[in-house]
Formats: sequence, C-alpha cells, structure tokens
Amino acid sequence: MTNLTLHEYAPSGNCYKIRLTAAHLAVALERRQYDILAGETRTPEFLARVNANGRIPVLQIGDRFLPESNAACWYLAEGSALIPQDRLGRADMLRWMFWEQYNHEPNIATTRFWLAFVGEAALSDAQRAQLPAKRAGGEAALALMDQQLARTPYLCGDAFTLADIALYAYTHVAEEGGGFVLAGYPAVQAWLARVAARPGHIAITD
Amino acid sequence: MTNLTLHEYAPSGNCYKIRLTAAHLAVALERRQYDILAGETRTPEFLARVNANGRIPVLQIGDRFLPESNAACWYLAEGSALIPQDRLGRADMLRWMFWEQYNHEPNIATTRFWLAFVGEAALSDAQRAQLPAKRAGGEAALALMDQQLARTPYLCGDAFTLADIALYAYTHVAEEGGGFVLAGYPAVQAWLARVAARPGHIAITD
Repeated sequence: MTNLTLHEYAPSGNCYKIRLTAAHLAVALERRQYDILAGETRTPEFLARVNANGRIPVLQIGDRFLPESNAACWYLAEGSALIPQDRLGRADMLRWMFWEQYNHEPNIATTRFWLAFVGEAALSDAQRAQLPAKRAGGEAALALMDQQLARTPYLCGDAFTLADIALYAYTHVAEEGGGFVLAGYPAVQAWLARVAARPGHIAITD
Repeated sequence: MTNLTLHEYAPSGNCYKIRLTAAHLAVALERRQYDILAGETRTPEFLARVNANGRIPVLQIGDRFLPESNAACWYLAEGSALIPQDRLGRADMLRWMFWEQYNHEPNIATTRFWLAFVGEAALSDAQRAQLPAKRAGGEAALALMDQQLARTPYLCGDAFTLADIALYAYTHVAEEGGGFVLAGYPAVQAWLARVAARPGHIAITD
C-alpha cells in the first residue's frame, strides 16, 4: 500500500478508529500529532494543505488527503474481512457507521471532549445548555446498541466489521463524559469485552 | 431487484436523497408516508418492525429494513456509475457523505425543520439557544462546499456521484431555514443548477 500518514490527535476516538482498523489489517501508519486544544488544525497551513474543514483525523495516502474517520477506515479495509461480502451486509454496516456520526458521536464523544478535555469550567453557556440533550441522546444511542447486541454478537451479526470498530472507539470511553454508566447496558459491556479480546486489538493509548 | 418500499416523510431531504438516487438508476420504489410531526415513527409497531431508532427514511428490501439515508443510497447504487470505480474515489465520496451527516445535515436540515415545519413559536428554549451555532455551522458547511465546487464541477471531481445527491437534498432548500442566502455561494449555486439539469433528475415535490 502507498505510504500512509495519519494526521491526528491521539486521544480522539475518531483517530483511534483508524489506528484500530490498521492494526487489524497489519497495515503500518506513520503518525503526526496536532494539539487541537491549541488550534493546530486551524492554522492557514493546515487548512490549505491537510483539511479545509480544520479537523483531524485525516489519512494521507501518498500526496492525497482523506478526511472523515469512517471514510478512512473504509479506504483501509476495502477487500478485507472487515467489510461484509454481500451487498445488503455492506449497506447495513454503513448504516451503523452513518448512525454513529449522527446519533452517537455528537452526543457521547462531544460530552467526553467538553467535560474531560476542555473542562466544565471553560464551557460556554451555549455548550452548557446543550449538555442535557446530549446526555439524553447518548443514553438513547447506548440503548439502541444494547438492543442489537443482545441479539447478535457484533453489530452486523456474527462477523466483526468496521461498524464494531467505529462504535467501539467512543463507547469504551463513554464514562469519561461523566454521567454515562455502561453497567446499565450489559449487552454493550459484553460486546466491548469481545472486541477488546480479538487478536490484533490495540488500546486507544497504544 | 427485490421489491423495494421507502418508508418516508416526503418533504424530508433524507428521504428525497433515496428517491433521487432511485430515479437516476430507473429503479421503482413503493412509498409509504408517515407524519413525523404526529409521532407516527415513534409508535410501538414502527419501533418493533421498521426502525428501533424511530426515524425515517427506512428502505425496505423484501422483508429486511435498512435505516440511514446514505446507506440506502449506497445499497441502491452499488455497481452503478454513481459510485466511483477506484478505491480512493469511493472513499472520497464516502468522505463527503459522512461529512454531510455530521457537518451539514444537523445545521442546515435541522434549522429548516425547526423554522419551516415545527415553527419558531413552538421551539423549546433549548432549541432556540442552539440556532446561532447551527446557523454558523451551516454557513461553514456551505463555504466548504463552495470552495470545492469552485475547483471541480461535482464534489468528487468530474463525475456526478452519490455525494452530489446526498448534499443536493438539503442544500437546494437551505433558504427555507431562514437566514441562509445561497447567492453568497456562487459555486454552490452553479452546482445546484448543474445537478438539477441532469437527465433523470426529479424534484423534492415529485
């Protein structure tokens, strides 16, 4: 595979997804760190060269730059066992990945970032006003996952796919957001253990 | 193709994306309407049978149910010219589609829904408090699209793809959200006209 560089902030679950996908595929990634709290992804140079959207992760493939965590996971995993072989299976996997970006990440990841990284005292009034809705949205997301995972070992059935990687990333650190209690979601807890026990797994701190 | 039924609320851009994809592929869809303002997608029967997440659109494929608009578009379009042939091209298309769900839809579509469908007087204080951030997020999304579309005729380059369909859906009705002025984004305006002029195009009201 072409030379791959991950432009990232290591504690971000979105960046971890890409590292975890690469680990399962035994693909090597170079890593370049940015301090997002210091605005290093909003500099004119970053916006012009890496991502006009001012965000990480970005997967650099040779001289091309690919933003959006789930798109980068897809790029790495195409043709591997991490993506289902059948058409409806692939679409169902993408369903969970789009759902993750719309229903899970803005609630669970944002709450974690605001409370564990920015700090409650530094939040704006507008951010603070959104916390109850984000808490409720996060609980609903965990409940939906729990319902699925009570029926199937992985989100798309019997096979471990990118949907599991995408949703593991922020679910396993959800309690850092303060208020989310994973013990209330036993099927999610069992799935977290199942994902972490797979050969090739790496931790978010690795 | 197996018998296809779209469970939808017709004015929703997320539902329109699927109809527009099907129209370009000349695939027939049955349509079943739900009044989301009356809670018809939150009934016990809907949650148990159609989508435990209580949302439309859902594409029914035989006896299987596929939620998430962009996943349904992918299902319909696999193997067609609406998806790029090369690996990086496919990932770049998915990049725009994930970006749409994270950066565009929650700002531009939600503002439209709140102001044009729910009505400003019926908004909660928490919703009203979010409007300035959603307005700013929507302007940033339109600016990013404008920057790309000033360089290439379609979002992924020379070819019309699912990324254009996914982003056309709510961009072309963005002004219904009150406050967004598309005249400020000339490359977006030219692209909207280019998409609407393509053979096979249908309107959101069709």
